[in-house]
Amino acid sequence: MNAEADGIGKLFRPRSVAVVGASSDPKKIGSKILHNITDGGFTGAVYPVNPKGGTVGSLPVFPGVAAIPDEVDVAVIAVPARGVMNVVRDCCQAGVRFALIVASGFSEIGRREEEREIAAYARERHLRILGPNMFGMYTAAVSLNATFGPPRIRPGGVAIISQSGALGLSMIGRTALENLGLSTIVSLGNKVDVTEVELLDYLGEDAGTEVILIYLEGVRDGESFLRALRRVGRRKPVVLIKSGRSDRGAAAAASHTGSLAGSDRVFDHLIRQAGALRAESIAEAFDYCRFLSSVPLKPCHNTLIVTNGGGIGVLATDAAEKYGLPLYDDVPVLKATFGPGIPEYGSARNPLDLTGEAGPADYERALTAALTLPDVGAVIALYCETAVFDADALAGIFARCFEAYGKAGRPIVFSTMGGEQTEVAASRLRESRIPVFSDVYAAVRCMGALHRYGSGRRVPAEQTDSPGIPAEAVERIAGGARAGERYFLLADEAAAVLDAAAIPLPGRKVARTAGDAIAAAASVGYPVALKIVSRDVLHKSDVGGVALGIQDEKELIDGYEGVVGNVRRRHPGADILGVEVSAMAVPGLELIVGARRDRTFGPVVMAGLGGVYVEVLRDVVFAAAPLSDREAFAMLQQLRCFPLLLGVRGEDRKDVEALVEVLRKLGEIVAHCESIADIEINPLFVYDEGEGVLAVDARILLSPENTEE
Amino acid sequence: MNAEADGIGKLFRPRSVAVVGASSDPKKIGSKILHNITDGGFTGAVYPVNPKGGTVGSLPVFPGVAAIPDEVDVAVIAVPARGVMNVVRDCCQAGVRFALIVASGFSEIGRREEEREIAAYARERHLRILGPNMFGMYTAAVSLNATFGPPRIRPGGVAIISQSGALGLSMIGRTALENLGLSTIVSLGNKVDVTEVELLDYLGEDAGTEVILIYLEGVRDGESFLRALRRVGRRKPVVLIKSGRSDRGAAAAASHTGSLAGSDRVFDHLIRQAGALRAESIAEAFDYCRFLSSVPLKPCHNTLIVTNGGGIGVLATDAAEKYGLPLYDDVPVLKATFGPGIPEYGSARNPLDLTGEAGPADYERALTAALTLPDVGAVIALYCETAVFDADALAGIFARCFEAYGKAGRPIVFSTMGGEQTEVAASRLRESRIPVFSDVYAAVRCMGALHRYGSGRRVPAEQTDSPGIPAEAVERIAGGARAGERYFLLADEAAAVLDAAAIPLPGRKVARTAGDAIAAAASVGYPVALKIVSRDVLHKSDVGGVALGIQDEKELIDGYEGVVGNVRRRHPGADILGVEVSAMAVPGLELIVGARRDRTFGPVVMAGLGGVYVEVLRDVVFAAAPLSDREAFAMLQQLRCFPLLLGVRGEDRKDVEALVEVLRKLGEIVAHCESIADIEINPLFVYDEGEGVLAVDARILLSPENTEE
Repeated sequence: MNAEADGIGKLFRPRSVAVVGASSDPKKIGSKILHNITDGGFTGAVYPVNPKGGTVGSLPVFPGVAAIPDEVDVAVIAVPARGVMNVVRDCCQAGVRFALIVASGFSEIGRREEEREIAAYARERHLRILGPNMFGMYTAAVSLNATFGPPRIRPGGVAIISQSGALGLSMIGRTALENLGLSTIVSLGNKVDVTEVELLDYLGEDAGTEVILIYLEGVRDGESFLRALRRVGRRKPVVLIKSGRSDRGAAAAASHTGSLAGSDRVFDHLIRQAGALRAESIAEAFDYCRFLSSVPLKPCHNTLIVTNGGGIGVLATDAAEKYGLPLYDDVPVLKATFGPGIPEYGSARNPLDLTGEAGPADYERALTAALTLPDVGAVIALYCETAVFDADALAGIFARCFEAYGKAGRPIVFSTMGGEQTEVAASRLRESRIPVFSDVYAAVRCMGALHRYGSGRRVPAEQTDSPGIPAEAVERIAGGARAGERYFLLADEAAAVLDAAAIPLPGRKVARTAGDAIAAAASVGYPVALKIVSRDVLHKSDVGGVALGIQDEKELIDGYEGVVGNVRRRHPGADILGVEVSAMAVPGLELIVGARRDRTFGPVVMAGLGGVYVEVLRDVVFAAAPLSDREAFAMLQQLRCFPLLLGVRGEDRKDVEALVEVLRKLGEIVAHCESIADIEINPLFVYDEGEGVLAVDARILLSPENTEE
Repeated sequence: MNAEADGIGKLFRPRSVAVVGASSDPKKIGSKILHNITDGGFTGAVYPVNPKGGTVGSLPVFPGVAAIPDEVDVAVIAVPARGVMNVVRDCCQAGVRFALIVASGFSEIGRREEEREIAAYARERHLRILGPNMFGMYTAAVSLNATFGPPRIRPGGVAIISQSGALGLSMIGRTALENLGLSTIVSLGNKVDVTEVELLDYLGEDAGTEVILIYLEGVRDGESFLRALRRVGRRKPVVLIKSGRSDRGAAAAASHTGSLAGSDRVFDHLIRQAGALRAESIAEAFDYCRFLSSVPLKPCHNTLIVTNGGGIGVLATDAAEKYGLPLYDDVPVLKATFGPGIPEYGSARNPLDLTGEAGPADYERALTAALTLPDVGAVIALYCETAVFDADALAGIFARCFEAYGKAGRPIVFSTMGGEQTEVAASRLRESRIPVFSDVYAAVRCMGALHRYGSGRRVPAEQTDSPGIPAEAVERIAGGARAGERYFLLADEAAAVLDAAAIPLPGRKVARTAGDAIAAAASVGYPVALKIVSRDVLHKSDVGGVALGIQDEKELIDGYEGVVGNVRRRHPGADILGVEVSAMAVPGLELIVGARRDRTFGPVVMAGLGGVYVEVLRDVVFAAAPLSDREAFAMLQQLRCFPLLLGVRGEDRKDVEALVEVLRKLGEIVAHCESIADIEINPLFVYDEGEGVLAVDARILLSPENTEE
């Protein structure tokens, strides 16, 4: 089910559409769809289908799709669920290429079998299916409104893919109201065949689409989705709303890496890594879409704020910090350029406060100067309605500045505060696709999103060599355990995996007697730690199977007997293979790192602040593997504790390079070794620059033999 | 300048107003104000004043205020700055009670002297002044629009106090547009006399005001302001926008407590403690005001979401978590109440998904049931425009449910998604003060704010005994240092202060020779720490004046010589008074706590996660002192690391009570001991419940002798 952008193109430019279930009863969904198609100016042929025959309006009704004396590109199936299979057969017979199954009553109410049967039948006969349980689609390319939503849709450059029916449908009306022109809106429904990935790839290529908005509640094949986001994101912005942020039930995993994840947390990190812009609310997403389809897609370094009201300028400055927008700061240039025109109580710094005394001419002069100042990357223009500058003059100034400089040159965003006259002017400007907001924070938030998108897109694709992990050796170790139907590695096996991958560990030996232990301790060096080795014990410290900080031979003997005795007493059936004697690690900055094969997103790497803080402060980040050096470093930069890695309060910089290498290796292991499901190193001590890292404890879980998805 | 709510009442209900600077030139600000007054239906008498005389419209113009043959309650002074003093003299002579000095050109451009002179003159003659540099005021009680803003103002229950001129003025127009009815809007200007505190107190008592919105850029007397917020907040909600969040220059303090503060960070914690609702943007503030003036002011426990669209219901659930709104969760009751009416693919859980199939009757039935379900505290009603439920039916349902249940009974908020028809219905409902939003997040954010306000207001005022601190002993210790013009305490003095306040410290003695040190170590017990005692050394470890973990006599002698030698070498002139020998503290949970007298807000207490994390994770909270037990505990609850205090991963609960006591004592010390400017304990080890705390290191700064504000 990979991207067939070519194949799916026909769906968006059909020459003929059949509407199955159309009738003269205007209340039927089929009739609404038919009406929207004929009323919406569809440029192709439309054929109502209904066994009852007759006519609808001026159109003859065909008894079946196969009875239509023309090739049918798209059939919209708006009959009750029980009748869908027959219509699909009819469509296949007629050689229809795409069916939109609007009918609900399938897997969403547990009727998976019926749905699967239809999908399998259609697949064999090369009929592509959207839905079932969807509201149809609109495509501006041929003015086709095959939805049962509002009849009037405003054409434009924004494509919407919605997983929700009712919400998607009600969004259509809102788009018109908010001057959001659509290239397409399509509903995913139950996704038995065509998924968001294929649609995304097509829309990425589609010349009529400038920005893509996706409303998602979940993805099935997250890996493909992330790859598609990455591909498409290089061409145009993808704005994503994913609801279900608070769904805590999703991550019932056995490890920290799993439990900390929470599916949304992981999702959030991964889609940002893939370059998508996540929006929280629909209002925010619409703002992004409208804005990004009207301005040049450039980063907004050196943004300058121009205002005729001091207060609103301060609010914009606050918002710029919140949304990560870098502000222009060359005070001498600002003074020289604007100083002479600004009253005493104004400000020739950034924000540039022209004061309430500024009339239209002052404002236009300053705004034009701002837009032509060489180093300014973007402009935020703020307007407060005043007695000397009413909204009549406003529209012209904004329109002229936007046309001359903003449209193709520098990103500019406007925000106004005032009464009815101001709002009328702003509305009119919005209709002309000039980005005018009624709230400073909303305006600056959009500029911040543009900056993120513009900066990210400019980063060239990176080619880094794989850090090289010994997949065969790892699989051999895992194979031994799995042969015994054991799905976790023992301490010495886990150590062997890390050794094979050249991830540094404390020196260690396994002892089978107290005498062995004495020799082992002498070899790795005191102080040492003791850990039970038993395939029956996963959580060693829970049964007293660990002793730390052993200083000398006497303590060693006591510790050895203690550990073995504790495990015998508390876990009587456990088969004790020995006691691992390891050198106590010199403490470093304590991190937790890991990697696992996520059910949805594939190989995922995690890094976070370790120790007791990991659970409380939840300072953890995720990224899809395999990772490049830059991606691994970018992960670390997102940690709140990142300054600790750079060294604070006179401490030295930590060995970030060694840490990056470990993250990359962990990613490669889960990406390339099928039998490894989950690795966690906790703690990983990170030492000063050049002194490397040390994996103090590692836990490795294996995949079950037959990975069933 | 304390609250004189009685006195200031006249300002908001004047019987007569003089407008100084009114003329027949309609471009003059005075003329605009006069026109707004006469046109706005002011119920009292209005007198234009201008030395030129003549008439304006039908009104005779008086040459001076004193020439008016009537008592003048309020004079609006709209003449250029240089003429203001004369007008003020004239007003005083005429016995005017309030002057609104609209003119700008005073302290905002550095002309402080002129401003002070006017203020002093007026104060002596009992003329109260608002401004200068303000836009006037509107008061609905007597329909007085004495501003030079828009002529039409919608009367209602929201009072606005704005520190910004241009922004405040432009807000007036927006209020009308957004159905925000005003009881008053008043501009603060340069605040030479009447401040936000006095206005706040009056508006708190004013029967016509339901919600107060304040736009602030800074406060002078933060302590009074916080007290006023607290008083008024018990009666009605106060919504606060303070811009300048990103002003990093404000806190140039010598200590952690200071540098971590950043004025906005402290401000944010303190106003929340005082019960105000902080809004970030004007849009958010307006939403809060409109919503809070239309619903019962109750907490929103057990909120139930009712929707006809699944997707929007999930978004609302996400938003509820984000804004701290507790959702109803009694599944059996929901099933029993709603199950029968909901289609198979809907949901009788919370959110209650009636599905897109729900028609108006289904929706109204469910919504009514939700609003009458005994345990449900509040309802969020969501609507998606669908084919079977158009917006015509919507308005009636929302209005009926709101009237019957929402207005006086349970808080309810509506949010809609749809096209023009839906938006028209929503607008009409908004005009009738029914809280309908076009964005789910905005709607839920308001409900969250109501919940915070409603929950906070219900908490009865707390009477707790002072923890009792020995102010005299502390002042005596500080006095000794200040006598020598030293403005920090030495280690032993700081220890003496904590000892006096019964805050536990490690055992310690000061040694003057190595021999002394051996005896001291034997008495406090090994291992010990050594610290130089010198009034010339503030940062002991920077000059090698500290040695830790001394295990025995041999190490002690080396350590003693080392510490003394280091300080002699690196700080040759330092007068060394000895070396403090203290028991090494058993490590506990490492916090940083402190208190200081803030220049703006008075005594402030701080608590945060200690160690290297304090600067990186910035997990710190602030509160105004003195603190009650509950307030101190509430502070700790706001820490991200709070779960560490409760005990996580099998660790025991920490001694939170002992920690609360320390915070209260620190607050009392800075509140009651004038000579103490700043105390910081870092680290404070907090042990398991019942085992107390230990102040490992303390730094105390003193106030300069003459505290000049």
